[in-house]
Parts: sequence; C-alpha cells; structure tokens
Amino acid sequence: MTETNPAFVLQSVNNVSFEDRQVQPLKDVYDVRVHVQQTGICGSDVHYWARGRIGDFILTSPIILGHESAGVIVEVGSKVKNVKVGDRVAIEPGVPCRRCDFCRVGSYNLCEDTVFAATPPHDGTLQKYYDVASDYVYPISDGMTAEDGALVEPVAVAVQIVKVGDLRAGQSVLVFGCGPIGVLCQAVAKASGASKVIGVDISESRAQFARDFAADGVYVSKTKPEEGTDPVAAARAMGERIVKEFGLGEGADVVLECTGAEPCIQAGIFAAKKGGTYVQAGMGKENVVFPITTACIRALTVKGSIRYSTGCYPEAIRLIAAGKIQPRKLITHRFKFEEAEEAFKLVRQAQENTLKVIIEGVHNKN
Amino acid sequence: MTETNPAFVLQSVNNVSFEDRQVQPLKDVYDVRVHVQQTGICGSDVHYWARGRIGDFILTSPIILGHESAGVIVEVGSKVKNVKVGDRVAIEPGVPCRRCDFCRVGSYNLCEDTVFAATPPHDGTLQKYYDVASDYVYPISDGMTAEDGALVEPVAVAVQIVKVGDLRAGQSVLVFGCGPIGVLCQAVAKASGASKVIGVDISESRAQFARDFAADGVYVSKTKPEEGTDPVAAARAMGERIVKEFGLGEGADVVLECTGAEPCIQAGIFAAKKGGTYVQAGMGKENVVFPITTACIRALTVKGSIRYSTGCYPEAIRLIAAGKIQPRKLITHRFKFEEAEEAFKLVRQAQENTLKVIIEGVHNKN
Amino acid sequence: MTETNPAFVLQSVNNVSFEDRQVQPLKDVYDVRVHVQQTGICGSDVHYWARGRIGDFILTSPIILGHESAGVIVEVGSKVKNVKVGDRVAIEPGVPCRRCDFCRVGSYNLCEDTVFAATPPHDGTLQKYYDVASDYVYPISDGMTAEDGALVEPVAVAVQIVKVGDLRAGQSVLVFGCGPIGVLCQAVAKASGASKVIGVDISESRAQFARDFAADGVYVSKTKPEEGTDPVAAARAMGERIVKEFGLGEGADVVLECTGAEPCIQAGIFAAKKGGTYVQAGMGKENVVFPITTACIRALTVKGSIRYSTGCYPEAIRLIAAGKIQPRKLITHRFKFEEAEEAFKLVRQAQENTLKVIIEGVHNKN
Amino acid sequence: MTETNPAFVLQSVNNVSFEDRQVQPLKDVYDVRVHVQQTGICGSDVHYWARGRIGDFILTSPIILGHESAGVIVEVGSKVKNVKVGDRVAIEPGVPCRRCDFCRVGSYNLCEDTVFAATPPHDGTLQKYYDVASDYVYPISDGMTAEDGALVEPVAVAVQIVKVGDLRAGQSVLVFGCGPIGVLCQAVAKASGASKVIGVDISESRAQFARDFAADGVYVSKTKPEEGTDPVAAARAMGERIVKEFGLGEGADVVLECTGAEPCIQAGIFAAKKGGTYVQAGMGKENVVFPITTACIRALTVKGSIRYSTGCYPEAIRLIAAGKIQPRKLITHRFKFEEAEEAFKLVRQAQENTLKVIIEGVHNKN
Repeated sequence: MTETNPAFVLQSVNNVSFEDRQVQPLKDVYDVRVHVQQTGICGSDVHYWARGRIGDFILTSPIILGHESAGVIVEVGSKVKNVKVGDRVAIEPGVPCRRCDFCRVGSYNLCEDTVFAATPPHDGTLQKYYDVASDYVYPISDGMTAEDGALVEPVAVAVQIVKVGDLRAGQSVLVFGCGPIGVLCQAVAKASGASKVIGVDISESRAQFARDFAADGVYVSKTKPEEGTDPVAAARAMGERIVKEFGLGEGADVVLECTGAEPCIQAGIFAAKKGGTYVQAGMGKENVVFPITTACIRALTVKGSIRYSTGCYPEAIRLIAAGKIQPRKLITHRFKFEEAEEAFKLVRQAQENTLKVIIEGVHNKN
Repeated sequence: MTETNPAFVLQSVNNVSFEDRQVQPLKDVYDVRVHVQQTGICGSDVHYWARGRIGDFILTSPIILGHESAGVIVEVGSKVKNVKVGDRVAIEPGVPCRRCDFCRVGSYNLCEDTVFAATPPHDGTLQKYYDVASDYVYPISDGMTAEDGALVEPVAVAVQIVKVGDLRAGQSVLVFGCGPIGVLCQAVAKASGASKVIGVDISESRAQFARDFAADGVYVSKTKPEEGTDPVAAARAMGERIVKEFGLGEGADVVLECTGAEPCIQAGIFAAKKGGTYVQAGMGKENVVFPITTACIRALTVKGSIRYSTGCYPEAIRLIAAGKIQPRKLITHRFKFEEAEEAFKLVRQAQENTLKVIIEGVHNKN
Repeated sequence: MTETNPAFVLQSVNNVSFEDRQVQPLKDVYDVRVHVQQTGICGSDVHYWARGRIGDFILTSPIILGHESAGVIVEVGSKVKNVKVGDRVAIEPGVPCRRCDFCRVGSYNLCEDTVFAATPPHDGTLQKYYDVASDYVYPISDGMTAEDGALVEPVAVAVQIVKVGDLRAGQSVLVFGCGPIGVLCQAVAKASGASKVIGVDISESRAQFARDFAADGVYVSKTKPEEGTDPVAAARAMGERIVKEFGLGEGADVVLECTGAEPCIQAGIFAAKKGGTYVQAGMGKENVVFPITTACIRALTVKGSIRYSTGCYPEAIRLIAAGKIQPRKLITHRFKFEEAEEAFKLVRQAQENTLKVIIEGVHNKN
Repeated sequence: MTETNPAFVLQSVNNVSFEDRQVQPLKDVYDVRVHVQQTGICGSDVHYWARGRIGDFILTSPIILGHESAGVIVEVGSKVKNVKVGDRVAIEPGVPCRRCDFCRVGSYNLCEDTVFAATPPHDGTLQKYYDVASDYVYPISDGMTAEDGALVEPVAVAVQIVKVGDLRAGQSVLVFGCGPIGVLCQAVAKASGASKVIGVDISESRAQFARDFAADGVYVSKTKPEEGTDPVAAARAMGERIVKEFGLGEGADVVLECTGAEPCIQAGIFAAKKGGTYVQAGMGKENVVFPITTACIRALTVKGSIRYSTGCYPEAIRLIAAGKIQPRKLITHRFKFEEAEEAFKLVRQAQENTLKVIIEGVHNKN
C-alpha cells in the first residue's frame, strides 16, 4: 500500500508544519498500529512548541507533537494477544525500557529510557497512525467516545497523583488548582471515597467549574498577598483560612498540589494535618521558598508525582466507563487536524475559560 | 521524710539558679520516681536558656532544665509492674496524653498535650528526683553506665530518624551533619544493615570523628559557595560530587538531613536517588529555598522526623548494650551538678571539639 | 439521688436475670456516663450466654451483657472536653490500657488489658447507664437514630476489616458471608471505591438482601460438596467458579472472609489474585485444612482482623451520616429492655431471616 | 566455529544423559552468553528428575537441568551495556515476560510467562553455554569464587524471604529449617540488623551448623509428637517452648518457615507475636491443618515468598562480597560435570550431612 501518514510536526521553536510521513512496517512483534481519532492538548505540548525545551528534554530535531490520544487498532504484531484489529483504545504515551531497575521494580515512570510521545527526540501522536507497544494501549468501553478515550491520559495522571497521595477512604483532600488535572484529581479523590474534597484556584470561573464537576467545596484565592506582607506568612494565613472555612479540623489528610505556584505550595504545607501527606504534582519554578521546619515538625510526608504507573490507565477507563468521571465536560474547544496550529495558539493564551482543547484525527479518506 | 530536691532552674532568659524544691508524693499510681544520675545537654536546652523560646514553646515561668537523663528508680506507684525500686533506667522525656487521635494511632510524637521535660511550662530532669510515667522509663543493661543511659536519648532520636527514613538492609545512606545526632544516625544506619553510610560536615575534626565512629566515608564541605555562584547550583554541585565521589550510583537511597542548614537541605535533594527518601531532622531556618521541581520529577519522598516513637528507646538500649553503638565516645566534657551553668555556657559556644556535654546528678548525700 | 441502674445480667451459662445495680460516682476525670438507648445483639453475646466462654475468656462470675450501644451523655468527668451532657453518642465497647506496647504503637485492638464490654469479667452495656472513657464515645449526627448509633459497632468492625485488607479504590473485593458483618463489609468496600464487590452465602434470602444492600453480585453456594468429593477440591472449584462467573480476571484483589466456615476459607484462598490480600475476619473452627502451598506460590498476604482501630468509629459514623450505609435496614427484630432474654433466644436460633436484633434501653421513667 | 555445547539432559523421569547441543547465535540484541563455571543443585532440580513434575510444571519433553549457576560472559548482544565479555557473573534463572501486569508492577516473580531455567519446558544451566537476558546476569566481585557466584541463587532466595517478611532492624526472627535456605535466611536476617535469630531443625548436626553459621540460637525439635497427643497442641507447645527458651517475649516479630513441614507451620503461627509477620517459604504438603483462629485473633500477617525480586541478586552479591555471608561453607560435596548424575543421586538421598552439592562446568578444552 502506498498510504501516507499525515503528521503535525514541530520543526523548531514556534515553527510547525504538516508533513506526509511514510507508513513503515511495525517494528516489533508486540507492537500495534493505532489510527488516531482524537488528541487532547496539554501544557507540555505547547511548552515544546513555544520554548523548545522542558528541563533536560531539548528539541534538537523535528518531532511530531501530541501525546493524549485514542484511536482504533488497525494492525497488530504477530505476538499481540491483548488487543485485535478494530479495538478502540486509549494510548499510554510512554513506553519504558523494561530492563532498568526502575522498570523492574515497577516504577517505570522513572525510567530514563522511556520513549515518550512528543518528548524530544520522540515523535508524538498527532499523526494518522501511531505505533506503540501493545501493553500500552487499553481498550475503552463501548459507551466511551474517542474524546473520552483521549482524555483517559489526564485522568490517568490524576489517578497516579491520588495513588502517590496514598489516599484512603474517609480522608479529607485539599487540591490546589482547578485546571484539568486539578478537577480530575478532585473527581478521582471523590470516587476513591474521600470524605471531603476542596479545590483552590485563583479563577472564580474555574472554581465554579470544579464545584460543578466534583469538589465538595472550592476556595478562590487572591492572586497576590497584600503589599508589605511576608509572602510565606500570607500563604500560611491562606492555608489556615481554608482549613477553618471548610472544617478540615487539624488540617487536610492529603494535599494535592497541581499548580506549581509558590504560594500554593506554601499554603499546602500549612494546610496539611500533622502526619499528613502532601503531593507535588504541579510544576512551576525550579526552586521555591519552602516551610521546611513546619514540614519537619508536623512529620509530613511530601512526595512528588510524575506520569503514571501500572493500573492507572485501566482505573481511569473504569471510572469514565462507570460514569464516575466525565472528562468530556472539560472540553471547551474542538479543532480539526488541519487546524492543529490554532489549537496550540489557543492553549498558549491560557485563558481562564480554556480548559481542555482537543484535535480530531485524520480521517480515513484523507 | 524532709528530704529536699535540688534543681537547676531557668528563671528567665539567661538567668539560672539552683533551688531546693520539695519532694511531693507521686501523682499517679502508674508513676515512678527516678534518682537522676546523669544528664546530657542538648542544643534545645541551651536554646531555651539563651533565647527563651523554640517555635511556639515560650518560657513564661521558671522551668527546671534538662531532658536527657538516666537514673535509678527509688519509688514506684501501686500499679507499676514493668520496673521496681533499684532498677537503673533511661528516661524518655515526653509523656503524651494517651487520648488524642495521634496517641491512639501510635504517633504520640505528634500529641499536642505531651508533657515534655524542660519544654515550657514543664520541668526537666536536672533535679535530684524526676517523676515520670512508668512506661516511659526503660531498664538499661548491667554493662551500660549511667552516662550510656543518659545518651540513650540522642540514640533514640537517631533510631526514629532512621525509622522515618524507612531504611532497609542493603540501602545506601547519606547523612548531613556529623554532630551527635548525625554520627548516631550513621551508626544506627550501619547497625541496620545499610550498605554504605556517608557523613557530611563542614568541620574536618567532626568528619574525622564520624569516620572513626561509624561512617564508611565522610565528605568535608566548604562552608560557603564561591562568590558569584548561585547557591542552589552550588549545593547541587556538592550533592552530585558526593554521589560521584562515594560511588552512590544514581544517588543515595536514603538521605538523612541532621543540620537544618539550607545548603545541606538543597544538596540532599539533589543527592537522593529517584524514588528515594529524604528525611528532614535538623532544624535551622523556618523557610529555605527548596528544589521542589527536582523533588517532584524524581518522585522523592520527603519526610519530617520529630522526637521518638514506641520502640525507639528499647532499640537504642539494645544497640548500646550489644556494643553496636558506643554513645559514651561522644562525651567530650563532664560537669558536676553544681557546675551546670558552666556546662550550658560551653554548649552555647558550639565549638568544633564539643560534641556531647554531660552533667552528673545530685548525690544521695547532697 | 437514689436512682437505680437496671441491668440485664448473665449469672451463669443460660441463666440471666434483671438486677437493679447501684449508680456509682464516675471513676475517672476522663470518664463519661451514657444513658443507653439502643443495643444490638451480636453472636458473641449469645455465645457467652449459651456456652460461657469464647477462647480464653471464661465466665466465672456474673456479667452484664451487651456491647453494641448508643445513648445520651448524662454526666462527664472534670477533664472531659470532646463531649458534653446531652450529646448523642455511639460507644466503642473496648477501652485499652493505653500503656502497653500494642497501645503505644496504635494497635490497641491487641491490648491484653482492654476492658471490653460484656467480655468476662467486664460488664456490658445492657444497663441503664454505662460509664466509659470519653475518647471511646463518638457523637453521632442529628440525622442518625439511636438504632443507627448502636449499629455503628458492626459498621466499625467492617471498616476495620476493609482497612486490614488495605483496599484501594478500583480493586475487586470478594466477601464470604452475607450476614450483618458480611453485608456491611460489602457496603464499606463499595463506599471505598471498590470496582466490584461480590458476596457469597449459602442462604438465598441473605444473598438477596446483600444484593439489595450493596453488593454488585452475589453467589449462593451449596452447603455441602457432593459426596465422595475431596472437600478442598470442591472449595477450589467453588472459588474458581466465582472468579469466572463474576469476571474477576485472575482473581479478586481482596478477599474478606466473614464466615469462619472451612469451605469458605479454602475457596477464598483459591479465589484470590496472585499477590492479593485475604482477610480472616470470621471465626469458626480453631484449625482448618488450609491450602498453604497455593497461598505461598501465589504470594498472598493473609491477615487476621480483630475488633477496631483508631478512626473506625468516626469513619463508620461518617458513612452512615452521609447515607452511604444504612445499617438500620439490617434490623429484623426489635425488643424492649424487659424482653432481652427473648432477643437472645431469637439470635441463638440463627434463623435465616434474622439479621440484626436490637434491644431498646431503659426509659428515664423506669 | 563448530564448537559444541555439552549438556546434562533430563530425558524423562529418572532418565538423564549427556548431549552435545549445537551452539546457536544469540536470539536477542540484549542477550548474553555465559560460559557456566559452577552450578549448585537444589531440591527442585532433583524433584523433576525423580518425579517429573512440580505443581503445574510437568516434564513432557527433555530439558537440560540446573538453575543455580555462575560463569563468564563470552558473548554479548549489540545493545548490551551493563556487562562485557570476560565479566564473571551470577545468573538469575528466571526471565519474565516484562509485559504482563505482574511484571509492570514489579512483581515479576508472579509472571506466568517467565522463562525459568530447568523448569519444563525450558532448558537449564547444566550446559557449557547458557544464553540469558543481560539484565538477569550480575557481575560478582573479584574476591568471590565461581562457587560463591553459583550460590548467589539461594542467597537471593533468602534475601527475598527476608524482604517479604518486611524485617526491620531490631526485630527478632524465628527460622524453621536449618537446610541451605534456612541458614541463609538466618544469615541475611542477622546482616539486616535482626536483634535475635533463632533456627529450628530436627537434625542436631544441621542445627549445629546453623549455630556456627549465623544463628544466635537453635532449637532441635523432635521429629514426632508423643503418641496420643493432638498434633496441633504439640506444635503449639513446641512454638511456645521456643518463645520461652530463647526469650522472645510475646513471640517472634518475624517467623520464616523454610521447611514446609506441617508441625513447623503450626508451631510458627503459635510462636509469632501478635501483629507479627509469618512467611511461608518452604513447600511440602499442598494443604495443612492450620490454626486459622489464632492467626486471626493475633492479627498476624501471613505471606508467601516465591523466587526473587529486583534487587535480590545485587544484595546477595553485596552480602557475600562484604563477607557477611559465606555460602561456600554450605558446600559439602563437589562434582565434575561428567559426574552430574552422581550429584543428583546424592541430593536425592537427602542425608543429614548433605547441605549443598555443586557441579563444576565444562572446561574450555572439552
């Protein structure tokens, strides 16, 4: 077949184009080929487009963008058993090496050699066909749309964050951030039996969305402390105000920080119960002023969450299929494949009313 | 009997005196009275003397100083079964309320209502007789001296820090600080089967002591980064240098921070292995510049350690009795009870060659 | 006041009577006095009545029966802060010594010196007034009836079983037994985010109740394997049949055994997923034929659950107050205080349609 | 090259022969070829030889025997980085599928599709050259002999058992069995900071070896309870006798059962402390009479240990290289490759004085 594979390629910073890549044979007997149907856009995609790097990952040659996708299996390698042609699947975008100690111990999210979609130098999913290891695609239920399937990715991120937080039924949860990851964390926490889930955001409209989506309560914080105030003292005051206002007793059992904003990080430490757990999931400044003595005296457990682990995708799919989480509600804008650049531009503007932007895949007749 | 009870009392900041307190009947059927034989001096004792407060604990009325003590049981309440008159015991200085949720869940170190020796408004152990709950005294073995008994306290602190670090046999451990708590952490880590224990200090002589005491290796850090250097970058470089120099592979499995110094905290985060554990035990500045993104991306677990938990005292005694830790080696200066003020003055000077200072108790013939 | 305190006393095996005990002053400044309003009857109460012993607990002198109670606070000791006169509370029936290592480490359910209501030689709650430590009573919400309050006890037992099972959101749970504890475990598991909860019982009507109460599915097992069958093989077949019938994949993530019946114990081991958790909560024969090699090869974790731990009562109350569990639905029979003996007789008959029997407390005008 | 590959092949039950297999090219770019130098013989090897099956693994076609081996790397695939030709390595005999959920979560010992040496239908290591995935060979230190290298396997088994037992420094450990696995568990427990390690065996000479090897104390049990005694009662009495005789207080913190013998399993449950951990590692009868009520009331955690997990081999090598465990001391008999059948016959006799039997590899000049 002489079929071509249209792709949306980041050539260099701020420079994208559409290409017709060639369709190659599957590289491995365990691989599958997915006809991509929907792809959500995430801040990191836009970051590469606008800045060309995230941490140690630097764009040095063109890559195809996109990593939150779902589609239909169109080909399977000879040893693939878990899926078959025609299956509708969500794609987990990072396939680890399977051989390093991190992989062998089950922490594949820490594998240095992960092939992660749209992370330099690896191509992403904004192409017609995406080839991936068969154990990193997960069948979605009939009741789920392809959009739901694409949004399994951020739900899986939230599942991992809640898992890192070691949340137990009956615990109270405070979530900083009411963007996509924040509200999904709130929803996962509720579905996990949390007794009370409180969201925090600086945007009134996002907070309202969170309230409607899953949170038991939301707190709208000021963007800036009053002039002349010590910023840490202001953050502490905010943390303590939240605890008091929402009846969190001696503090939240679990704090999930999904903004990366310095005042939220600080407030989160002060809002955590002694012996409680704080999870850093949001990423902002490399270094922040951190109330280490409070973290120490209160015997907090502060953990970082990154990517996903085994079971996150299936659990995310289960929650969506069971109607416990409706990620489609997060979609505020939809684009055709050919409009991909507009989608990226919109996300870059980071407007208050832009929650989730999604791009349709290339149709068969293209 | 008209026996009196000589005591070393902090009347107000920098103002101490000896008093003859009256001996009262035991307050509870589960209490015991200990004739104190030896008392170690700790930074916190000196802090109250010099500053009158630590965090929320503020000296508002006179308190007897001292909290690291051992002695002989001279009286027991009617329901006491675990010890008897004549037993030589180490005293755990904090008796919790036993009724709050922290106590009931086993985290009595977080109990708000703990009666902690020499923490305002509670009297300490620098008196002839100290009354305490019978389950907070622990018989020491015949081979242990009263000095060993007094130093069970800092060993128990180290046992707790290592426990919070969730150290498993075969793991590598990096300990910041070669003062008393630092070297004791190093020794406890070794006795717990750590594969490699590295100490860090700015003092060459302390580092040398650590090497002789228990550490497999020591790193002497510069006190200050070179001018014009970004302090976090300098700390990162130090952390990475330590990892490389001591063959810690991808980083230390467990980092125990016992200094509270900002550069050590930062270096510790950068020296920890992905997925590793970092324990904050030292206390310095309330807030520090903290590499939160690195902690997040590396999926570290950062925990605070404070005081002790059930089992720390018995384990500390076992390690000393078995000869695995010899805390007596830390004693650099010994004082009579009447010289208590000199002891405090010496500790305040914080000279490099002052490790542990100990004060003998009041003799029976006093 | 010369008020008396009517009590339902087990004098000796099968020999009960009503007595008018005297009201004594509270024994401790932390104690409270509860006017008991409702008391559920549990198998263990009946066991003492019918047999005079459970394990090492032997009836040697009269005891007041009853341990599942709720009531109203009528008096508080001078140091009680958490509750006040007039509060409606559920009573946790076992108050531990607070001083042994089990208590200090948070495992107070293992304390040897627990004063447990209606366990020889301690009096129970089937009296007008019951005195107990203030931290072992828990205010119930306005929306809860006294019956709900009494049934907090079995709900708390279920909360502990699920906690011992270390259940995480998204896991599948197989519960043997659809009696009160079994169905409550099923409900707690659902409220904790379990993906699928299957109940097993030999009674069709109990199974039906379980289906209506909380379970996603129920399996009605035969009481006996066919003649000539190896019992373990039959149990294995049953376990495997359940796994297949309810789509539990490689087995249930968590198995909660609430019957103590030998075939259920065996089936439970075979129905557990490799690496899964099995909790023994039911008690029957002292020793059973146990598939130890399967437990070993499958790397199962088999744990025993007994009584409650800190947080179980508050969580049980929260689940009832939030409407997630409605224990009142379990009540099949109600008795007046004076009819207590009939209530015990009924429970002893263990009829299929007797789920929970409850006895009203003594009215004020008595 | 026309080099041949001599192999010791189990053709059918009790029927072995030497064959010259052909040397094939490496099958995978990540594989290595090891020239086998020493191979220990284990009970399971002999079991296949004598019975043709273990559980579901049934000999249906010839397999090469042997799975405890060390050797020298003679060839590496193109992508191998962790080892090079000439490296001396210990071989972990089971390479999992890397793709199932058990593998992905870090429990590769539970992977159904593991290629395990000398487990039907897979060939073992009793051949000149053995090909294996590069991440399942581990360089041994210069100070270690090839015999030490071969015995890394049973040491790694012991490391896993102790890990499953979640042993913490300071805990007491009771090990049933003083055969190779038993004494190695005792040594690993000691090296992990156990406070007291007690071994149990029916053989006086094995017990004596255990005492010399690592145990703090050993208990020689009678092979059979006195006639007319209830076997469980006898086992309970034995368990309680051990606890008393060795001063284990309320019981052993951790019990490691390495015999699979019914009385040991029973005694182990009764000898465990409330809240303690019991690990089933030995395999004997499929089903045993098990004191389930005691396990339940004491809130024990009973776990099965099988094979190894990530980190066991490196930790075993570290312990041997550091001189903390000297597995060579276990070797009682040595055989040439050509004498392999005699070695198997000897092991089958299971004489008291046969601990570890080892077979030298095929020399280069063969």
